[in-house]
Amino acid sequence: MDHDIPRLLAFADTLADAARSAILPHFRVPHRVDNKSDTHFDPVTEADRASEQRMRQLIEAGFPDHGIHGEEFGEKAGASGYQWILDPIDGTRAFVAGLPTWGVLIGLYYEGAPLIGVMDQPYLDERYRGWMTGAESTIRGATRDLRTRGCAHLKDSTLSSTDPTLFRGTESASFERVRKASKVVRFGFDCYAYCMLASGTMDCVIESGLKAFDIAALIPIVTGAGGGVCNWQGGDASRGGQVLAYGDANIRDQALSLLGAISR
Amino acid sequence: MDHDIPRLLAFADTLADAARSAILPHFRVPHRVDNKSDTHFDPVTEADRASEQRMRQLIEAGFPDHGIHGEEFGEKAGASGYQWILDPIDGTRAFVAGLPTWGVLIGLYYEGAPLIGVMDQPYLDERYRGWMTGAESTIRGATRDLRTRGCAHLKDSTLSSTDPTLFRGTESASFERVRKASKVVRFGFDCYAYCMLASGTMDCVIESGLKAFDIAALIPIVTGAGGGVCNWQGGDASRGGQVLAYGDANIRDQALSLLGAISR
Repeated sequence: MDHDIPRLLAFADTLADAARSAILPHFRVPHRVDNKSDTHFDPVTEADRASEQRMRQLIEAGFPDHGIHGEEFGEKAGASGYQWILDPIDGTRAFVAGLPTWGVLIGLYYEGAPLIGVMDQPYLDERYRGWMTGAESTIRGATRDLRTRGCAHLKDSTLSSTDPTLFRGTESASFERVRKASKVVRFGFDCYAYCMLASGTMDCVIESGLKAFDIAALIPIVTGAGGGVCNWQGGDASRGGQVLAYGDANIRDQALSLLGAISR
Repeated sequence: MDHDIPRLLAFADTLADAARSAILPHFRVPHRVDNKSDTHFDPVTEADRASEQRMRQLIEAGFPDHGIHGEEFGEKAGASGYQWILDPIDGTRAFVAGLPTWGVLIGLYYEGAPLIGVMDQPYLDERYRGWMTGAESTIRGATRDLRTRGCAHLKDSTLSSTDPTLFRGTESASFERVRKASKVVRFGFDCYAYCMLASGTMDCVIESGLKAFDIAALIPIVTGAGGGVCNWQGGDASRGGQVLAYGDANIRDQALSLLGAISR
């Protein structure tokens, strides 16, 4: 099937513009934070809800036969193979703490496979777009191609993970092996770290417990920039779970070996 | 002694402007990263060196009798009680990874006590200034007073620390007690987290192993905004070491109690 990638990317830009307008008035303004979970703190704000609602309205108007899967308002079945996968604010904890490294994630799958993705950071005026065979950023009006950098050895690599305390059971030991083998490690950056990877300033991102909407938009960006995203066994990560994103296949191979050294 | 605080702050702004010009051409541009340490990776770039050199030149010309203590070029004794304490890029690891949460730190001590401080984030066009009895930010041209927020209980607080793997020995257990008692935890933000605390979007920052130049500029910003900075025993933190920054004294008391629960 031929997809009209330029048209779909332009539509994703329209969605990202709408999300920006919905979110920015709430950033760094005292706001009510609700808890979505009975068992732990899982924050959601009016900004998350307004962002997703606006994007869903636009999709329903523009592509009524497309499915939608959003973090806040769930799944709507489609009559075509297309499904938009939306995280209206990835990094809500960073958002409520005033930090500028959250992002709007807009992914599009066709028959379950990643097709295009957009990550938008409204406060920084940074947008990252990917379409599996290419990727670009538009930062403060300047658009350029994205390209991951080469990195032959983990000992020379920069690794990122949002929160090392989120790993469970043997995951902690697996991650620790990679962390100790890496040169620079940065915690805390949610979707933003994947865009730094695609931009060629980081080499590896390792996470676990992701949902599909946490990774859907990022797979085309990282892949289109020349890297890749897989799970900790080297397989498909498009549904989330344990995720490894890399800029250079050498880093993938070395990280997979260390991640699996005990559990396999 | 009466200090001419407005004049000193205006001079610190001049230093921050000079550091911006020295650093920004190097951000997100492939650059050589040197290692300052024989035992571990302690990165320094041309941007760090250019930033500090420019600031030192300006101080030597403007206040020849002031002392200087900078991260990259060491101490220069002064003939007055004033000492400028400079970290040309706090968060060099974030800088080399393309992340926007590093900052230029400019502190001024008088006879060893913090007097004024400036944190500048050139890429975001954000500057934070403090003078022990007040603090303000200038973000994209808009200046406003900084004020920490009230937070009566640690269970409602947002905590930040740059890297939990930097804690040593019993420090890890101490930090873990506070982390588990907090509502939201964010890792990874170096000096930027202290400015979010001063802005009223976070409640607590806990670090260890800091040098004087990592904290000197931040003490007047956090204190001037209504919060405070102390060490893990509640004492002076102006030389670095184990640092606790808080927006509300209730958080200080509860965090100190948990930090010291075993080691004291």
